[in-house]
Amino acid sequence: MNVSVIGGSTCSKKDYRIAQELGRLIAHEGWILVCGGRTGIMEAACRGAKEAGGLTVGILPSIDGEDGNAYLDVKIPTGLGFARNILVVRASRIIVAISGKRGTLSEIAFAFNEERKVIGIHTWKIKGVIQVKTPQQAVARIKKYLKKISI
Amino acid sequence: MNVSVIGGSTCSKKDYRIAQELGRLIAHEGWILVCGGRTGIMEAACRGAKEAGGLTVGILPSIDGEDGNAYLDVKIPTGLGFARNILVVRASRIIVAISGKRGTLSEIAFAFNEERKVIGIHTWKIKGVIQVKTPQQAVARIKKYLKKISI
Amino acid sequence: MNVSVIGGSTCSKKDYRIAQELGRLIAHEGWILVCGGRTGIMEAACRGAKEAGGLTVGILPSIDGEDGNAYLDVKIPTGLGFARNILVVRASRIIVAISGKRGTLSEIAFAFNEERKVIGIHTWKIKGVIQVKTPQQAVARIKKYLKKISI
Amino acid sequence: MNVSVIGGSTCSKKDYRIAQELGRLIAHEGWILVCGGRTGIMEAACRGAKEAGGLTVGILPSIDGEDGNAYLDVKIPTGLGFARNILVVRASRIIVAISGKRGTLSEIAFAFNEERKVIGIHTWKIKGVIQVKTPQQAVARIKKYLKKISI
Repeated sequence: MNVSVIGGSTCSKKDYRIAQELGRLIAHEGWILVCGGRTGIMEAACRGAKEAGGLTVGILPSIDGEDGNAYLDVKIPTGLGFARNILVVRASRIIVAISGKRGTLSEIAFAFNEERKVIGIHTWKIKGVIQVKTPQQAVARIKKYLKKISI
Repeated sequence: MNVSVIGGSTCSKKDYRIAQELGRLIAHEGWILVCGGRTGIMEAACRGAKEAGGLTVGILPSIDGEDGNAYLDVKIPTGLGFARNILVVRASRIIVAISGKRGTLSEIAFAFNEERKVIGIHTWKIKGVIQVKTPQQAVARIKKYLKKISI
Repeated sequence: MNVSVIGGSTCSKKDYRIAQELGRLIAHEGWILVCGGRTGIMEAACRGAKEAGGLTVGILPSIDGEDGNAYLDVKIPTGLGFARNILVVRASRIIVAISGKRGTLSEIAFAFNEERKVIGIHTWKIKGVIQVKTPQQAVARIKKYLKKISI
Repeated sequence: MNVSVIGGSTCSKKDYRIAQELGRLIAHEGWILVCGGRTGIMEAACRGAKEAGGLTVGILPSIDGEDGNAYLDVKIPTGLGFARNILVVRASRIIVAISGKRGTLSEIAFAFNEERKVIGIHTWKIKGVIQVKTPQQAVARIKKYLKKISI
């Protein structure tokens, strides 16, 4: 199962650590981490996932993949620029947003269009985003959601 | 020159009239109206533009174009579903948002990613959206912007 | 109704004249000419369509539209590079290919994927392409096809 | 490094075995197998790669991923239909085509647009495709190409 992590390509140290911990937890659950493949929150989440032996996928804006961070197992260059945000969202049924600016906002909004579940930490306060405070809470919400849809 | 009008596929009568008037004014200026081609705000803007003898373009979610409203001169079926929102935004340097829900939010956020100018009427209060109250004010802001970038 | 004309961004004088004549005939029928918006066959077809008072649409590779030819009524910048070929194909039920290289081949092949009708003049001899010799014959085949699907 | 394998969603037993062997060899080299994620050649290549302990990625037409074959480590649902072919091509610098019909042709042609290297086995005889007879020869050609571009 894929979980997409979205958030800014620049972020605070605190949010970086949160994303890293979330990456670890996602890998620990055996889930695949999908992201936009770049720096900041994306890099942090990938780094955490790799620390925990997980699998990471970056769906990249470039057409050649040179913009990928150092913790990606799979690079998917798209040549779509920011439009690749849509693919990051479509790739998973569950999206976790950490901080982020307008790029992240576009992904959150697009996730609702596509009926994806969105969990947020320190991010946009948009109606429909399940706001949590820690990576642990995010994972708990994902598990709860999976239990619900598998019944 | 293209102007993209974005907003919900359902809307209040009041917002419908606003979009219709905006469509008229856009056509009156000789600008081409680009939109997502469906009902609600999109239909209203196209209808207004046609009343004023303008040209209307709908970039449609479907692959066959049967979801287009009755006031489109040019239908561009895409088969991309909601992802066509990105094309509506990329098609114009200037976007006017009227009311709208999450689909519109995704377009506003994506417009910022792509460095488009966004003018809003009764819509999301996102930082960076130039909030105005009437179609006339929206057109005045567009003209001001055009003057600025043409210098 | 849209008709998409595809072909190389460079072409022989002979093929340029063929495309220009095809553009004229398309406009004469009241059909909208859709193309990739650039030079060569695309420009020729648009030029012919404008000479006959038609409407022309260019779905452009660039994100700003500066790569459009001089005979476009509607420019749709996409920022998709060559991937915009898919949108040129999806935009119409009928595609006319004139000469062309690999870009045109990708459009012909993609047109079959999407169950579009493809008519060819001096182009790739791929099974399924209805080969004709003149723009007049191309238009006759389009009319025949329209009659068939409208029954 | 990614290698994209393209080919029909239905294929002969012989081509299935060729694709399976190619998958094994790709995995053996430590390369990541990217494909359209469905049946036929795609399934065969993934199956071979998994037999050799490799990593497989399917870029899927659907928006929910239910069309993926049983040998995919990573499913990337796109909701793009056949347009996802472009992403399969952009994902790798090297494409191997095995048999295939028009879907494969569109990928080959698109690969040239995007300046990808294309190696073919029992597939379209398009100029520019490096025709080989066996998976072993395909891998040898890939290695030769990698040596060339790394100098």
